[in-house]
Amino acid sequence: MLLLKLEDSGKRTKSNQIVDGIRRKIESRDLLPSDRLPSTRRLAESLDIHRATVALAYQDLWALGFIDLRPGARPTVRERVPLAGASENKETPLIRWDLHVSLRSRRIRQSYLQYKALSTRGGSARSIIDFGSLDMDRRLFPVSAFRSCVNKVLRERGQALLSYGDAQGYPPLRETIAGRLRSHGISVNPGEILVTDGSQHAIDLVLRMIASPGKAVAIESPTYNVALPLLRFHGLRVLGIPVRDDGMDLAALESALGRERPALVYTIPNFQNPTGTNTTQAHRERLLSLCETYRVPILEDGFEEEMKYSGRVVLPVKSMDARGTVIYCGTFSKVLFPGVRIGWIAARSECLEHLLAIRRFSGLSTNGVLQAAMDEFCRNGSYDRHIGRMHRVFRKRMKGTLRELRKRLPPEWIEWSEPAGGYLIWLRLKPVPGPSPDWASLFPAHGLRVSPGETYFPSGRPSTFLRLSISTLDEEEITEGIRRFAGALNTIYGKGAS
Amino acid sequence: MLLLKLEDSGKRTKSNQIVDGIRRKIESRDLLPSDRLPSTRRLAESLDIHRATVALAYQDLWALGFIDLRPGARPTVRERVPLAGASENKETPLIRWDLHVSLRSRRIRQSYLQYKALSTRGGSARSIIDFGSLDMDRRLFPVSAFRSCVNKVLRERGQALLSYGDAQGYPPLRETIAGRLRSHGISVNPGEILVTDGSQHAIDLVLRMIASPGKAVAIESPTYNVALPLLRFHGLRVLGIPVRDDGMDLAALESALGRERPALVYTIPNFQNPTGTNTTQAHRERLLSLCETYRVPILEDGFEEEMKYSGRVVLPVKSMDARGTVIYCGTFSKVLFPGVRIGWIAARSECLEHLLAIRRFSGLSTNGVLQAAMDEFCRNGSYDRHIGRMHRVFRKRMKGTLRELRKRLPPEWIEWSEPAGGYLIWLRLKPVPGPSPDWASLFPAHGLRVSPGETYFPSGRPSTFLRLSISTLDEEEITEGIRRFAGALNTIYGKGAS
Repeated sequence: MLLLKLEDSGKRTKSNQIVDGIRRKIESRDLLPSDRLPSTRRLAESLDIHRATVALAYQDLWALGFIDLRPGARPTVRERVPLAGASENKETPLIRWDLHVSLRSRRIRQSYLQYKALSTRGGSARSIIDFGSLDMDRRLFPVSAFRSCVNKVLRERGQALLSYGDAQGYPPLRETIAGRLRSHGISVNPGEILVTDGSQHAIDLVLRMIASPGKAVAIESPTYNVALPLLRFHGLRVLGIPVRDDGMDLAALESALGRERPALVYTIPNFQNPTGTNTTQAHRERLLSLCETYRVPILEDGFEEEMKYSGRVVLPVKSMDARGTVIYCGTFSKVLFPGVRIGWIAARSECLEHLLAIRRFSGLSTNGVLQAAMDEFCRNGSYDRHIGRMHRVFRKRMKGTLRELRKRLPPEWIEWSEPAGGYLIWLRLKPVPGPSPDWASLFPAHGLRVSPGETYFPSGRPSTFLRLSISTLDEEEITEGIRRFAGALNTIYGKGAS
Repeated sequence: MLLLKLEDSGKRTKSNQIVDGIRRKIESRDLLPSDRLPSTRRLAESLDIHRATVALAYQDLWALGFIDLRPGARPTVRERVPLAGASENKETPLIRWDLHVSLRSRRIRQSYLQYKALSTRGGSARSIIDFGSLDMDRRLFPVSAFRSCVNKVLRERGQALLSYGDAQGYPPLRETIAGRLRSHGISVNPGEILVTDGSQHAIDLVLRMIASPGKAVAIESPTYNVALPLLRFHGLRVLGIPVRDDGMDLAALESALGRERPALVYTIPNFQNPTGTNTTQAHRERLLSLCETYRVPILEDGFEEEMKYSGRVVLPVKSMDARGTVIYCGTFSKVLFPGVRIGWIAARSECLEHLLAIRRFSGLSTNGVLQAAMDEFCRNGSYDRHIGRMHRVFRKRMKGTLRELRKRLPPEWIEWSEPAGGYLIWLRLKPVPGPSPDWASLFPAHGLRVSPGETYFPSGRPSTFLRLSISTLDEEEITEGIRRFAGALNTIYGKGAS
């Protein structure tokens, strides 16, 4: 006889109370495997409830695996297969994930933990002035103009945009991107564009295409720090080519090309991350010519192509690339919204076809809604207006930053070169007499976050460089930040003078 | 002396005319490297235009790499580095991409070409009835409800959503997903969820985490065809475990687990793609218990968890997984919008941390706008209403499909089993006396697209199976489609009877 007592409190449905009651009896072994439960009619009568309520409870118990149901027969208690969950030690995973995953996964997790620790060093207090982040100043975001675009495209083509889209990218957006690239001297058609989920995704796709055991990639040293763990994750050997004042050391590159035959040269010719360096036209020609000679493709990262606000920046390497040696990647993140996650690759179709196939099978496509909204935003002129504004604002902010640096920091402490655009200044600290200072805790103690140079070098060795980014800061914050920065350095370099 | 003639037509700016004029003279070698150009003042006087116009033209010529500019000196013509682009043969890429890319990239491109050919077989005429696509019926999309959500979140939190977001996923959406999973018996917290760019991306991340040379993955045979090229791309050996009427053959699985020690078992327990099979509670328990015994993780693909419209479907394997052996992935694509590209992984944090690190370095994060909009859509009840509607509509459509199949197709031609949800029916064609018919051209000739069975088997060998998907079709289209299908089969099987 099945004894169940239902409450009338109304807090739990009667059906749920039956489920819990029977479940408890099975778990406590008051009901044993093969025991038969009452028919729905019988149990409903004994509890004075509707038969459908019992039927619902039995369905749930079946879905939960406690009973078997057969048409025309009374339910029976199931024999459950013993599972590890039933044992005492529920908290320890049965699989040792750190040993089960590949070595490269273990390593990239370590890199992630380090990266995270670094970008939150000093806490997240509002009073911290953050020269470390290359996020964008969200106060400048043209949110409502973008919202109108999203609205418009969803109203006009919502059904199509929410269906599976073109794996290569929304065709009108590819047209728009090809048009913008033409304004930078790059001659491509929309069939040579692949839309990606941002620039990092673009780099990942290119590395996936070329990576195989033993292959190497030549990079600038220092370079974009988020690319380094990714290169290692791909099992690629990293050939760091020193960056001089005028860009990658081409003699060193040539000897690496001859000796190591890398599968790719990765370069950021404009406002290089982290050094802020722009290479000259002559440097770009020699770089391309070298890579043509050795038949090694270039991955040109044009992440801030649109941020040439000084007017003295030459055209991309890709603009000279008549024979398809350059894979170019760009993004909307560094002049507009990082969170929109839309970037692109421009490459010869013989190359792009491979990238497209990898893209298709590793994630289908970029969402259509934001692609179409971004396209609308470009076509209705909002993007050009926004770029104009960003140029005005950051020309002024960068000028202010350099002025404050000159005013407060004597050349005996630190030196830097002046960038022609972008958001980055790369500083070299002068040698300090005596034991090396604890830079890592110095800046947070002065209410500052800066990006330490060593994360940008493939070797990861301690360096005397710092990267300042002004991308999230306004003029007032910059002035106050440089004041604090000078104060921090004064505790190191000022001692001797005092 | 520099001879330039400017037009006054107003079609091209004077500055552009100067650029083009000088450029032509350099290209034709009327001007040679090291030749000096007139000062801006001199040229402006001789052309009777403003000096700033000449300065602008000189800046452009410098950016294009034709001249050198030095403060206080006259511009000189640059010696350009010879580039391959200058040679005759502009059309041939300098790099043989098909040889330069990795072997696996070459292979995945082949798969992509085959896949594309298959999904467009028979053309894209409107009159084709498409049982091949597992896209969704866009006529059912709740576009305007979703648009309101996008609007709301952009209005209220646009700046934050368009900045870099949480790599693990928008925290409120992770809460919502965890809540929905609880309704399927899966007990996870938001810290155990990783938001992905759709389900395919989730599978790719899991494979990236475990892949290393020599490793194997056990899969159902047949299985989701888009997973197959991806598995091969990862260099994973594929162990195909036959699917019986009740799901993966567990005896075959056990022997594979013992013999090959795969790094992962990939399974789709509900409405399996392509067979439509649901496994029972007992099958799921045995599967989990086996994998616990051999310490092999399960990747459970719950791509249609929400499409249980018959009411007779058991809970996910993950719901029993107390010890963290199951990695579960889900998506909003197969009940709502495929184009929104939002899916998720639920796994123990020891496992998830590795996936998060790979995700972070290979593409930063999923865009915030659509994550927040999707979250709003769930929270305001629209998602539940939509699911309710989808269940009503597809219960009816599936019933209609099965009724038409029974009515028009005798069991001597073809057989199938009835799914308890989802969009798929898997049919087995009976042997045909005589030479094998040309199935590939038969269906398009009858105005139909169906999905041939062989693409779902790892071997790729010809099969006698077909997959019908009703996901994009309404009742009228289904009725007409089955009529055509019967007509097509009649040309093969009806002959003997006539």
